[in-house]
Amino acid sequence: MQELVYLNGWIGSFEDSFISVNDRGYNFGDGIYEVVRVYNGVPFAVVDHLERLENSAAAIEMTIPWSRVQLAMFTEDLLVQSGIKEAIIYIQISRGTAHRNHLYDPQINPNLLITVRQVPEIARDMYTDGVKIITQPEFRWQLCHIKSTSLLSSVLAKNRAAQAEAAEAVFVMEDGTVTECSASNIFIYSNKVLLTHPANNRILSGITRKYVLQAAHSLGINTREETFTSTDLLAADEVFFTNSVTEVVPVIKVDDHIIGSGAPGPVANQIHTGFITLRNAGV
Amino acid sequence: MQELVYLNGWIGSFEDSFISVNDRGYNFGDGIYEVVRVYNGVPFAVVDHLERLENSAAAIEMTIPWSRVQLAMFTEDLLVQSGIKEAIIYIQISRGTAHRNHLYDPQINPNLLITVRQVPEIARDMYTDGVKIITQPEFRWQLCHIKSTSLLSSVLAKNRAAQAEAAEAVFVMEDGTVTECSASNIFIYSNKVLLTHPANNRILSGITRKYVLQAAHSLGINTREETFTSTDLLAADEVFFTNSVTEVVPVIKVDDHIIGSGAPGPVANQIHTGFITLRNAGV
Repeated sequence: MQELVYLNGWIGSFEDSFISVNDRGYNFGDGIYEVVRVYNGVPFAVVDHLERLENSAAAIEMTIPWSRVQLAMFTEDLLVQSGIKEAIIYIQISRGTAHRNHLYDPQINPNLLITVRQVPEIARDMYTDGVKIITQPEFRWQLCHIKSTSLLSSVLAKNRAAQAEAAEAVFVMEDGTVTECSASNIFIYSNKVLLTHPANNRILSGITRKYVLQAAHSLGINTREETFTSTDLLAADEVFFTNSVTEVVPVIKVDDHIIGSGAPGPVANQIHTGFITLRNAGV
Repeated sequence: MQELVYLNGWIGSFEDSFISVNDRGYNFGDGIYEVVRVYNGVPFAVVDHLERLENSAAAIEMTIPWSRVQLAMFTEDLLVQSGIKEAIIYIQISRGTAHRNHLYDPQINPNLLITVRQVPEIARDMYTDGVKIITQPEFRWQLCHIKSTSLLSSVLAKNRAAQAEAAEAVFVMEDGTVTECSASNIFIYSNKVLLTHPANNRILSGITRKYVLQAAHSLGINTREETFTSTDLLAADEVFFTNSVTEVVPVIKVDDHIIGSGAPGPVANQIHTGFITLRNAGV
């Protein structure tokens, strides 16, 4: 098994992988990306990821010169070559290489980076004991539906969470609306209803979020994509966040406030099990 | 004369300058930068730029391992070696190289990039005829005082301006407040008062802005760092924007609205002359 990098057709190790200092991803955060989890050698929901990548490209007026099939093939080839079965695939497309200038040539050739790495070790007690998250005033830009590499806001929020010994930071707008976490979507379960922020410009519409909603629906849980406030968050019976790497993570504490009974709730657990069933079915 | 790149101590051409695909600037826009103009071999206001770089670093909790004197020396050496007299110096510090993870090791070593290029040709008719700008709803993050490389919002705005055959895009908040342009500060002159947005989290506090305010003051012009609205902008006697590369640029049109007489005004011109006097004095 070997972690591998694909860069514009070239394949090699991380140690040997370099990009021009004139890459617009490097100078401007002018790029888009996807993170795909691989279970037992099979990338999960790769079509969803590639579709979202295309949506991100369209939103920043970037033309991707590779078809969805080509991208899937490059990725699959790299995955097979790596020999890694439990992997994280990272796909990044930056706008291309040119002398630094905000203005870009519409004819510029994007740079394609794909990497395959082993899934990081995920502490099982996240699921059995639940985690703490912190609130963070929303300060990101207003195009959060674009999965772009201009990620400094998320980096700052995630590291503030870590400094507070928390697993995530959840963004709260001035009017109290809860949007999402720095790299996860957030759900609350209250009065037998599962709520999560609608998929608009204020959140990244997660692939795990999508299948969690589907799993909840299959389980007969009443789900609504509606905004809720930080007051609702603190008063919720259950809270959990979702992302492609850690799937469904129960939250038992928000800042210093205990959620529900202070232990992971049955609904989060049920939904996580439902999600695992869905992804094992290879949607 | 040769355009040159300094990268962590190494010096060479752009063609030979590469950075790891694990650089956090490349994956996360997790970096800060400065652009310094060089007049006749002398970098203008380099102390201001390096001070702002330190402020940006502090705001993103990055520790710069080089002193201000060291950075000034690296820059000066590269400039001399390039032989370029009318130059743009670009300084970028990314947080460092590590496998992709929002969380960073506080001990990570930053990557330092410095480049020296010739000043691009600046069309003189910008100053004699004035330029058009477009308005753009403010959609950037709320930490605009940080000069970070997570610049996708500015890239999108600047390119929309270009598509509308305009020189800049000016951001307007939902309440009508005008903040700044995609890569410039904006000033209006109305009722014998020069106004520009206060230097808070909503704008990047420009070095040219600082010296323009100083020049205006020397000229006995009443200046105030106060917010103004898009209505004020359209009704202004004069409008201009400022940045380190093009200095002071008169605006004669905002979207389809003619500003003042539709020609560059005397105040913008006076202030530009005052600014040139200041920078020739080598502040």
